[in-house]
Amino acid sequence: MKVLQYIRKNVKKMLNVISTDDFENLIKSIKEIDGEYVNILDSHGRILDEDIYSKVNIPGFKRSAVDGYAVIAKDTSFCNDENPISLDLKEVINIGVKPKEKICSMECSYIPTGGMLPIGADSIVMIEDTETISKEVFINKLVKKDENVVKENEDITIGDKVLSKGDLILSHQIAVLISLGFKTLKVKKVIKVGVLATGDELIDIDEDIEIPKVKESNGHFLTFASREDNCESKHYGIIDDNKENIKQAIEKALDENDLVFLSGGSSAGDKDFTKIVVGELGDIMFHGLSVKPGKPTLMAKCKNDKYIVVLPGHPLSCMIIYRFIALKLINKIYGKNHKVISQELELGEGYYKKTGREEYLPVKIENNLVYPIRSKSSAMSVMVRCDGIIKVDRDVEGYKKGDKVNVIRR
Amino acid sequence: MKVLQYIRKNVKKMLNVISTDDFENLIKSIKEIDGEYVNILDSHGRILDEDIYSKVNIPGFKRSAVDGYAVIAKDTSFCNDENPISLDLKEVINIGVKPKEKICSMECSYIPTGGMLPIGADSIVMIEDTETISKEVFINKLVKKDENVVKENEDITIGDKVLSKGDLILSHQIAVLISLGFKTLKVKKVIKVGVLATGDELIDIDEDIEIPKVKESNGHFLTFASREDNCESKHYGIIDDNKENIKQAIEKALDENDLVFLSGGSSAGDKDFTKIVVGELGDIMFHGLSVKPGKPTLMAKCKNDKYIVVLPGHPLSCMIIYRFIALKLINKIYGKNHKVISQELELGEGYYKKTGREEYLPVKIENNLVYPIRSKSSAMSVMVRCDGIIKVDRDVEGYKKGDKVNVIRR
Repeated sequence: MKVLQYIRKNVKKMLNVISTDDFENLIKSIKEIDGEYVNILDSHGRILDEDIYSKVNIPGFKRSAVDGYAVIAKDTSFCNDENPISLDLKEVINIGVKPKEKICSMECSYIPTGGMLPIGADSIVMIEDTETISKEVFINKLVKKDENVVKENEDITIGDKVLSKGDLILSHQIAVLISLGFKTLKVKKVIKVGVLATGDELIDIDEDIEIPKVKESNGHFLTFASREDNCESKHYGIIDDNKENIKQAIEKALDENDLVFLSGGSSAGDKDFTKIVVGELGDIMFHGLSVKPGKPTLMAKCKNDKYIVVLPGHPLSCMIIYRFIALKLINKIYGKNHKVISQELELGEGYYKKTGREEYLPVKIENNLVYPIRSKSSAMSVMVRCDGIIKVDRDVEGYKKGDKVNVIRR
Repeated sequence: MKVLQYIRKNVKKMLNVISTDDFENLIKSIKEIDGEYVNILDSHGRILDEDIYSKVNIPGFKRSAVDGYAVIAKDTSFCNDENPISLDLKEVINIGVKPKEKICSMECSYIPTGGMLPIGADSIVMIEDTETISKEVFINKLVKKDENVVKENEDITIGDKVLSKGDLILSHQIAVLISLGFKTLKVKKVIKVGVLATGDELIDIDEDIEIPKVKESNGHFLTFASREDNCESKHYGIIDDNKENIKQAIEKALDENDLVFLSGGSSAGDKDFTKIVVGELGDIMFHGLSVKPGKPTLMAKCKNDKYIVVLPGHPLSCMIIYRFIALKLINKIYGKNHKVISQELELGEGYYKKTGREEYLPVKIENNLVYPIRSKSSAMSVMVRCDGIIKVDRDVEGYKKGDKVNVIRR
């Protein structure tokens, strides 16, 4: 019974709750992870560690936007379908090859899409607007100077800032970087995340459900979610809920990773030795967030700029805290330019809450109206059913039907 | 010169353009790829090939939402801070273990968050609202029936449809599937994509830029983009722009993959043998789309439900056609429930176009206003600069400043 008395006395003291604003301030000074050079084809899903300024113009030379004939626009001034002019064909330009012939008045060269404009020519007549008889090309339509010509810096000019440090490299970025001539690239080292789950009630995927045991799902969620967010993550399994085991497991995970996410053991109840252990392994930055769901979150800084985040055991709380706390930590360490896609929409029904706590509320969108999904923090199906999340600030008492809210979509 | 005359005569005949509506109709009957069973931990990034109905209730038993004391609510009816009632402590329930003792009137058991409610109890008093002296527990606050109790089907009820055939499995879905007791799962086989690039102007990443050669970027884009969209993709490199080489390369890629994406060689110009080759390897479904950019797109159906898509060589066209044509084909073969995130916003400036062609227009969003990015289809930096894309229907002549448009964000 001594344990119970201890808990009763300490339950409020143990949770010194901070706000998410405090959290954002706390992580401001966190050091970014180092960079490394990788082959450009290995940079997919990595975070840029340098600003990218172009050393070249793109496309780099005047080229044709169409298949047709490179001409001097002035020569075509008076021509139309009825009055074609005839030009001498100088050469057939091949794509990827420098034109050999200069174009003088009343001359032209065939040029394919992407072909290099020959010296002297200033525009291209589309092939559809021409007739060819032997070496004579009849032009049926006038063109203006620069018509169908792609300028040498039409897309990118030398010195342009094309990408920024902190940008995530995906397929579009790789295409641009290849075109700019990059072969290697400085990207952030991959953040390694070790995931552990504690709780005597937890059973593994392979075991059959036997009430009141429950399947360990939070650890798997955290492993895959952090992989989706560009980390290399490993699940260390279910750790027996006793101090020595937890300590050893966290130490091993800390040793092998940059971040350790622990699910469960974050509340101030019985058998939650986690805070004591985490306190022995690092400096506790906070224990308790004034958010719903997710209050009993714990975070500690350990040596070598490593961090432990203990996430709530309730599945929905765990998912929300991952998204709005743990992911912010990941993105801070990456120095990532994280783009949140959100959308202002009207509420289809009212929502009321107590002031003093921020809330992250999963919502459905139907006919462009937002409906809160009312659920307990233990609910886990909410995140697969919701279309987005709204953040309800701590001082807000709620919303009326028709109020505009900002739905975080991604 | 014979080649030129041939091209001139056939250029319009060769492109029998269809609309994107026609395209959607064309792919309606395409057969979905088969399914296979995989270990649930290997299902991340895969497409579900079965509807998921729950065979269990979640959480599966009445459990506590807090650390506290399981009681009979009626016993606490008159208690408050000044008038606590005293209950006999029957046991300390451990999480994951069935309670041994039944609760009768004036009795209670300690219960941790997630612990199973003992028989007889109907509510839980939070530990903060109690005092404990030896085996006596003083309750300082009344609770109502079911207070702090999570119902056995609070989250998911037996028979609920939890996920649907065609859903993409990500971290949230895996967590739910694990909780439901799944060990293996029927998912779609991974679509294999072979990517080829043709064009005599193309040089590889390792070669230095030498005007008017350009770096091959479309093929790399298509490889990584289709990987982002859950395919297993391989780049077969740059193929010399001659008929025999192209044919051999496409044949090999067709043999080893479900889809072949070829960049370049889709326009009707000189040296574009692609259509002839593709026609020899399969039945051409269409050549030409009435969209801007991306008109010279070509698609063919080959034996064994394999498809070839020839995408335009212009980088922006290639990226747009990937997104709005090739990706739709991928999603159709997966039977994927693809969620597009879009947002209705006002245009910050007008945009005018010719009718008769649908346009996909990259846009920037600034201060919640939408600004079209004006660029040629050869531009490749647009897709890293834009915040989204608007689809301008074929009959629309354009928009005025202030008109509402639907921005496709993802």
